[in-house]
Amino acid sequence: MMRELMTFDEAARRLVEAGKRFDGRGWVLGTSGNFSVVVSAEPLRLAMTPSGAFKGELTVGAIVEVDGTGSLVAGAPARPSAEAKLHTEIARLRGAGAVLHTHSIWSTVLSDRHGSSQGLEIEGYEMLKGLAGVSTHTHREWVPILENDQDMERLAAAVGDTLNRHPAAHAFLLRRHGMYTWGDTLLEAIRHVEIMEFLLEVVGRNHRGA
Amino acid sequence: MMRELMTFDEAARRLVEAGKRFDGRGWVLGTSGNFSVVVSAEPLRLAMTPSGAFKGELTVGAIVEVDGTGSLVAGAPARPSAEAKLHTEIARLRGAGAVLHTHSIWSTVLSDRHGSSQGLEIEGYEMLKGLAGVSTHTHREWVPILENDQDMERLAAAVGDTLNRHPAAHAFLLRRHGMYTWGDTLLEAIRHVEIMEFLLEVVGRNHRGA
Amino acid sequence: MMRELMTFDEAARRLVEAGKRFDGRGWVLGTSGNFSVVVSAEPLRLAMTPSGAFKGELTVGAIVEVDGTGSLVAGAPARPSAEAKLHTEIARLRGAGAVLHTHSIWSTVLSDRHGSSQGLEIEGYEMLKGLAGVSTHTHREWVPILENDQDMERLAAAVGDTLNRHPAAHAFLLRRHGMYTWGDTLLEAIRHVEIMEFLLEVVGRNHRGA
Amino acid sequence: MMRELMTFDEAARRLVEAGKRFDGRGWVLGTSGNFSVVVSAEPLRLAMTPSGAFKGELTVGAIVEVDGTGSLVAGAPARPSAEAKLHTEIARLRGAGAVLHTHSIWSTVLSDRHGSSQGLEIEGYEMLKGLAGVSTHTHREWVPILENDQDMERLAAAVGDTLNRHPAAHAFLLRRHGMYTWGDTLLEAIRHVEIMEFLLEVVGRNHRGA
Repeated sequence: MMRELMTFDEAARRLVEAGKRFDGRGWVLGTSGNFSVVVSAEPLRLAMTPSGAFKGELTVGAIVEVDGTGSLVAGAPARPSAEAKLHTEIARLRGAGAVLHTHSIWSTVLSDRHGSSQGLEIEGYEMLKGLAGVSTHTHREWVPILENDQDMERLAAAVGDTLNRHPAAHAFLLRRHGMYTWGDTLLEAIRHVEIMEFLLEVVGRNHRGA
Repeated sequence: MMRELMTFDEAARRLVEAGKRFDGRGWVLGTSGNFSVVVSAEPLRLAMTPSGAFKGELTVGAIVEVDGTGSLVAGAPARPSAEAKLHTEIARLRGAGAVLHTHSIWSTVLSDRHGSSQGLEIEGYEMLKGLAGVSTHTHREWVPILENDQDMERLAAAVGDTLNRHPAAHAFLLRRHGMYTWGDTLLEAIRHVEIMEFLLEVVGRNHRGA
Repeated sequence: MMRELMTFDEAARRLVEAGKRFDGRGWVLGTSGNFSVVVSAEPLRLAMTPSGAFKGELTVGAIVEVDGTGSLVAGAPARPSAEAKLHTEIARLRGAGAVLHTHSIWSTVLSDRHGSSQGLEIEGYEMLKGLAGVSTHTHREWVPILENDQDMERLAAAVGDTLNRHPAAHAFLLRRHGMYTWGDTLLEAIRHVEIMEFLLEVVGRNHRGA
Repeated sequence: MMRELMTFDEAARRLVEAGKRFDGRGWVLGTSGNFSVVVSAEPLRLAMTPSGAFKGELTVGAIVEVDGTGSLVAGAPARPSAEAKLHTEIARLRGAGAVLHTHSIWSTVLSDRHGSSQGLEIEGYEMLKGLAGVSTHTHREWVPILENDQDMERLAAAVGDTLNRHPAAHAFLLRRHGMYTWGDTLLEAIRHVEIMEFLLEVVGRNHRGA
């Protein structure tokens, strides 16, 4: 892959900005959510938000570096998020340059409402065209929903399985937990977050008007 | 028309401000939406937001200039929005000085809920008086809804047809897509966006309480 | 009345701040709303927001001064709001030091839902204690709702009649229009706006969950 | 208790920041809400927000100090909140380092909807893991709801009784009033506010979609 990667310092600066953006939207309340940017492909290294921090108040110095197993490389004494393994799994299987996990009201509500169907289909919205590779609103996006799990090895395996079975998916939901999406670049991943959050809220409000 | 037009530089500055305003309202998530200001009437020239940019983070240098066919005149290597032809069609048929396209939750929800009626009527609200030429809340505003289309020539023709059939309309919706409105000036167009978004949310919440 | 009044300049500065505050809450979209502060009791003079301005972008120089009939005293060539007569009526009948008119989604929705009852009762909320003179959540607040009218003389008379018939009311709604509230001071009036908006949204959401 | 406490000045600075944060979220409209930080354990002393202030516009100088009975120690001529006794009761019984009381739309709506059950159960959400001591989303959180009362001695006794009967509870609601939560530190208490507000809104929106 010839894509040029950000340096760790640049990635850290951008992750701080992304934190403020999503905090302002109300999508990472209470230290929830975690974000990463791939800063090296071989070997795999990610700049990542630390565990337990308010995402609207991150500092560049708080960003940590993890390896391909999700273990801390640099940034001690902070801990990487417990969900680091999900980030590395996504980065590897999708060749993503950035992985973003948000905890919005609507993604949580819909992950539960459609949880028993193991996913929900979103079709016919112009906003879908903001997803990488989608060129028409007639696109059908299947958003897989996985059961939540505190065993990160098992959950990472389930995520890997889901990504393989749904190669066209741009995002997935963890039930009663939140959303994961990604992109070739951090900007693309941020766009994907906003598009998916928009679509989930529209679907959620439509349903309830029914 | 003797109206004095903004220079391109002034228009670019104001478009950047409008982007921040609507981004803060949550009406242009994920690089959605596009805005234009007429900077020359003969020949027609518009200052326009570029394709694919976050509207809350525009810079003056990113604004492009398009001609009456929606083709780029200046601002390379950026691209004008694919929807530039809709802007020029509206500018011509309405003599508008500014055209604004937003993608809010409520305009999207209502464009679908009332899509099969090809429009919705809004009547009896004081806020209607903020629309140009309206002097009483008893005004009936018909908001046409068009089917969405990826063929911009065909969609521009449908928009032109709609504007001609509804000469009093201040805005229209594209189904499952968003809203277009306009004004003699950018300030009037911004006012129209906020008024229409307000009215659509009120109508949307009323319906659901029923 | 021995209350000390603000100077016009101080009132203008505070009205600009109030505009930013309520714009941020989304309660004065599209140049809607108008605010006033009494700067002289005898003869009655009010510092007032001008007609047609975005309330989040007011400048001190844009604030006008009106007399007891709602006519412009100073601030030309701007116009006072067409609703200036309602402000002076309220200032006189309630001895208010400030009058605030907002156009929120929820006040508009509820003004219509309860319009045929000519008012709605709000009872049992702790937030009621923020209304001047209320010391317990068991307080019953009757919020009168008046039919909207473009004839300002007639509407001012209806407002006067309503205020006299409901001497304990802290606010009233104009149907499909918005809310008026007031206070001895601008700070008290701002508090009343926020309390009433809170209560109306709670009542509105409760109803719909039923 | 070996926990290091903030100085009064540091606590005051942080309370001002917390006020801006929650004001921006819309959880302390109209001077509602009150916050405290323990600055001395023996004897008990709390830095506390004053009565009747807009929480988004606090200044460090406005913060008062109260003793273990909720009486003013320093900060005259301001008054501590009438609810100071609830703060000291919580600080004592939970060994809390900070106590936060917010008045959001959703906590008010849910406190009423579930009031007759004297509480509501929240279970199965990942966000629960942000509550101190909770390590899995399968956790069941019981949120007690108490009847509101203007007699602060009696209400403080009811709060004490509730805290003793529900030793695992991280928060409680006062009916038609708002939420109280706390934490070992102010940061933990802020996290608890955001997590509880998130969960209450999710539960509230779920119910209504049913």
